[in-house]
Amino acid sequence: LPTFRITLAYDGTDYVGWQRQAEGPSIQGAVEDALRAIDERDVIVIGAGRTDAGVHAYGQVAGFTIARALSAEAVSRALNARLPADIRVVASEEVDAAFHARFDAISKTYRYRIWNGNAVSPFERRYVWHVAAPLDVAAMADAARLFEGTHDFAAFQAAGSATKTTVREVLHSALRTSHFEIITFDVEGTGFLRHMVRAIVGTLVEVGRGRRPPVWVADVLASRDRARAGPTAPASGLVLVSVAYGAPRALAAEP
Amino acid sequence: LPTFRITLAYDGTDYVGWQRQAEGPSIQGAVEDALRAIDERDVIVIGAGRTDAGVHAYGQVAGFTIARALSAEAVSRALNARLPADIRVVASEEVDAAFHARFDAISKTYRYRIWNGNAVSPFERRYVWHVAAPLDVAAMADAARLFEGTHDFAAFQAAGSATKTTVREVLHSALRTSHFEIITFDVEGTGFLRHMVRAIVGTLVEVGRGRRPPVWVADVLASRDRARAGPTAPASGLVLVSVAYGAPRALAAEP
Repeated sequence: LPTFRITLAYDGTDYVGWQRQAEGPSIQGAVEDALRAIDERDVIVIGAGRTDAGVHAYGQVAGFTIARALSAEAVSRALNARLPADIRVVASEEVDAAFHARFDAISKTYRYRIWNGNAVSPFERRYVWHVAAPLDVAAMADAARLFEGTHDFAAFQAAGSATKTTVREVLHSALRTSHFEIITFDVEGTGFLRHMVRAIVGTLVEVGRGRRPPVWVADVLASRDRARAGPTAPASGLVLVSVAYGAPRALAAEP
Repeated sequence: LPTFRITLAYDGTDYVGWQRQAEGPSIQGAVEDALRAIDERDVIVIGAGRTDAGVHAYGQVAGFTIARALSAEAVSRALNARLPADIRVVASEEVDAAFHARFDAISKTYRYRIWNGNAVSPFERRYVWHVAAPLDVAAMADAARLFEGTHDFAAFQAAGSATKTTVREVLHSALRTSHFEIITFDVEGTGFLRHMVRAIVGTLVEVGRGRRPPVWVADVLASRDRARAGPTAPASGLVLVSVAYGAPRALAAEP
């Protein structure tokens, strides 16, 4: 039975998130439905990251095993023929049957985009958070760097989360103005708590508005108190950019 | 009575085009409706270009006169507060009462974008034409240059058009690959016939697919026969980028 690793891009605006839910369209559900038409049986698709409702992806990674002998190219083509246009398979490859999209991931990179200006471009409105107030980008960039390293991110997770540990390692955290009125925050980590990136961005905007100095980030981290950090930034600005894996295991040669 | 020149960006996907129609939402209608709420009377808005159904704009220009004494800044803010999010005023200024958005335009620049690859990015799907077949971009670029100059574009206008003359001047016509799988065609002209840019693009794609050599463009121009040119490319890929005007007339000083 061939196992595949696919890379997905999606506009998450109209979805309840990655994970299949009782109500509403999910990305996982859309991919599983498309696979059912190809494989003629129920296939479970495992995603690298459980993106929330309204969150987008340039490079979500998912894995699954099917019963039909198809090439990676054929799987990709068949999926794109059946998926809605706001979900696309942008890459696919056959991998070792032991591949697990979530557990094998070494790091994930997210991007958050803020539209800092008056009129949000109609072409960007689904993919940004509109902050009309002037923002001090240099102060935000200083603050963004303070998230790098291994920290207890308890102050930056969704209320009511019950994770074993709230310690996470952030490999890279940088903020810059990119084009038009867009401020871009890129963050790579070995793992993320629920709403962690959005709570970080809400905190960076507090700094950008001049309400707090950049070093305040260290106090918030030390507090482990969600109430001390900034608000959770809206889902629309968040994109799962890519998921990194180790060197691929060689496919077992067919006997 | 103050006269304003506004610059509009819009995602034309959900509109019947610039011009108010008996049925369906138009850009002109949306702006006039928003102005009615501000000015409390009917205002006629004149657009520089009558973009067709599904065509977008980064910089459509429109002019109108209102009865209230408002600053350009206030007009822009009030319009953006009332317009749907897929239409934005990106600039506004007070101009001489004689300003006419269409007649005073010196040139217009359009952009057409082709997605030349398998899976169209979910973030670009509304703003491109998907051509999956391989395209020879160098041949298309050679052909694109042949449209520069003053030509009779009768072969490149919508069937059934009744214009006085089909001679138009193209100041700039260039095609290149830009980013991802996107091929971008930029064309500036002093005036355009209906569907002219889309017929040019349909013709360039015939060249890109190797069905015709670049010099074929000269034959099609000379033929003045719409049936000889390529098909009309879809509206989704077309954007009105900007409209150029001469040096602004100074506002008459108040006595």
